[in-house]
Amino acid sequence: MPTEFEWIERIRAGIPDAAPGVVIGPGDDCAAVEGRDGLWTLLTIDALVDGRHFHRRWIDPVTLGRRLVAINASDVAAMGGIPRWALLSLVVPPQLADPWIEGIARGACAALRDLGATLVGGNLSSTSETITADLAMIGEVEADRVLRRSAAVPGDVVAVTGELGAAALGLAVRSRGTPKCQDEFAVVRRYLEPRPRVAEGRTLAGCAGAGAAIDVSDGLLADLEHVCAASGVGAEVDVSRLPIGEATHNLATQLGFEACDLALSGGEDYELLFTARPGAFAEIAAAIRIDTGTAVQAVGRIVEGSGVRAIGRDGREHRPMSYGWDHFQGTEPR
Amino acid sequence: MPTEFEWIERIRAGIPDAAPGVVIGPGDDCAAVEGRDGLWTLLTIDALVDGRHFHRRWIDPVTLGRRLVAINASDVAAMGGIPRWALLSLVVPPQLADPWIEGIARGACAALRDLGATLVGGNLSSTSETITADLAMIGEVEADRVLRRSAAVPGDVVAVTGELGAAALGLAVRSRGTPKCQDEFAVVRRYLEPRPRVAEGRTLAGCAGAGAAIDVSDGLLADLEHVCAASGVGAEVDVSRLPIGEATHNLATQLGFEACDLALSGGEDYELLFTARPGAFAEIAAAIRIDTGTAVQAVGRIVEGSGVRAIGRDGREHRPMSYGWDHFQGTEPR
Repeated sequence: MPTEFEWIERIRAGIPDAAPGVVIGPGDDCAAVEGRDGLWTLLTIDALVDGRHFHRRWIDPVTLGRRLVAINASDVAAMGGIPRWALLSLVVPPQLADPWIEGIARGACAALRDLGATLVGGNLSSTSETITADLAMIGEVEADRVLRRSAAVPGDVVAVTGELGAAALGLAVRSRGTPKCQDEFAVVRRYLEPRPRVAEGRTLAGCAGAGAAIDVSDGLLADLEHVCAASGVGAEVDVSRLPIGEATHNLATQLGFEACDLALSGGEDYELLFTARPGAFAEIAAAIRIDTGTAVQAVGRIVEGSGVRAIGRDGREHRPMSYGWDHFQGTEPR
Repeated sequence: MPTEFEWIERIRAGIPDAAPGVVIGPGDDCAAVEGRDGLWTLLTIDALVDGRHFHRRWIDPVTLGRRLVAINASDVAAMGGIPRWALLSLVVPPQLADPWIEGIARGACAALRDLGATLVGGNLSSTSETITADLAMIGEVEADRVLRRSAAVPGDVVAVTGELGAAALGLAVRSRGTPKCQDEFAVVRRYLEPRPRVAEGRTLAGCAGAGAAIDVSDGLLADLEHVCAASGVGAEVDVSRLPIGEATHNLATQLGFEACDLALSGGEDYELLFTARPGAFAEIAAAIRIDTGTAVQAVGRIVEGSGVRAIGRDGREHRPMSYGWDHFQGTEPR
């Protein structure tokens, strides 16, 4: 069985390299087409499926709607763009229509409003099976500011916003049952309610010396690997520098997880992973912190070659437990 | 249980009336936002769900992909626009990944290519349940040519392209089993392979005297009702003037269906339903026939008031058998 990314590669092979009006085709966080006033229009779509991306006994409809907007806005953020408009397609079994249809829509509308964006259309279908929620997000970015996966060069600092690992730990906690203490509730909330780094992406996009960018959905190593593949470079990640909150670290240890492995391969963080020219990094990190209050941590560097290596505290390669998920390999049941 | 349209109304109630860049909000065949070079960008999304919109023993993956593009392009056509770009989101059980993922994508790409459009991105998820295929279509239209549901006025001729009823008959035939003769295969094909009326919509949009437009997906009466509600008018349909092919009529009779009821309420036709000022109608019909080869039939007229009435051959109101489908009422199992 091919992996999810192999399927995507097969589909991409059938799409022409160039098409009228298309400035960025498939393969980045968003596609981009020519837009109004010389801007580029960013296009992305993402789904949340009951039983795969969520369980409806874990999450209320409004939070699900908010999450659906967040994960799509995160893709727009990773291009340096602003979310503008959205289309919502809900497929819901009739017996779940109330309260899931209205709740998901209300959550999505609220999250869009928080972002200055708006729902402009959608579709409603029934099913005999389970809930599938698809959202297409349309954003905008200045052509000369767009952030790409392909813009990393050897020597770049690899950096990440915020903290890593908490969301994956939250998913693990929730998979085991009901949260039992404040720290458990906190990480579950980090999983259920990601905050798209739109403002951080805007600041980054305006900085001289910014390199590549992507959002961390599959896991730091997997997403950095996407950057490296698109840029034709390799990368090293320094495990000792991963931004892991103390409470996350302690809870992970207590529950039998390696916090650094959650940070490396857990995913669900929806933080911005980016590269920057080494001479520009300090200024970029400061600009993001000043504009948004969000910390930025250097976690590695771009090197010649290919592939991503995590370097442990002992100076040797660290191979994390895989907490990642491939939809068509089923690496980890969720 | 609210109907599908009541759910949609509830969701629309939560969306602000005006939003930056939005020129047509929810409630038409597409939303429209400001686009490049003074054009409007059209946005729409539609899903095909296994067990509701299709059965995978009825349709091959490539045809399903083509159909998904067609039903979305039909919405762009009903606004007078040109399909440009698309996003495809597939949710597929792992055991069906091969050949459904590649087949749907290949069909979608081929249908987009036929339209001069292109796939620019997408998403792939697994599910333990069934296939859901969502496609978001982005089109373009000149601001001064856009066709709206709200542009019908009393006195307008109500007209439709092509023929009605064959697709709904095809769905009924297929629901009963394998087609048994050429005529049955022909109507099943009409159901599985709708042809979006993009060229017809473009010609209509360029004609003086064009009124409202919508595509016939729910059924002539239901879709005309949408036009009337949006325009604040009523309509009468002359049952004797419905464009029903002779083969469709004969097959319907043979199988125990009322052909005119299939044409009035069956849906799935993906023809263009439009209104035109009475003095302009003949010229519009001629222009569409000359430009595209597609026949146009006047089937009724717009009147003061509200609601849609079908008038039978006896001059009295004709209430068709309902062959329509409401997702949350289950009017007719498909």
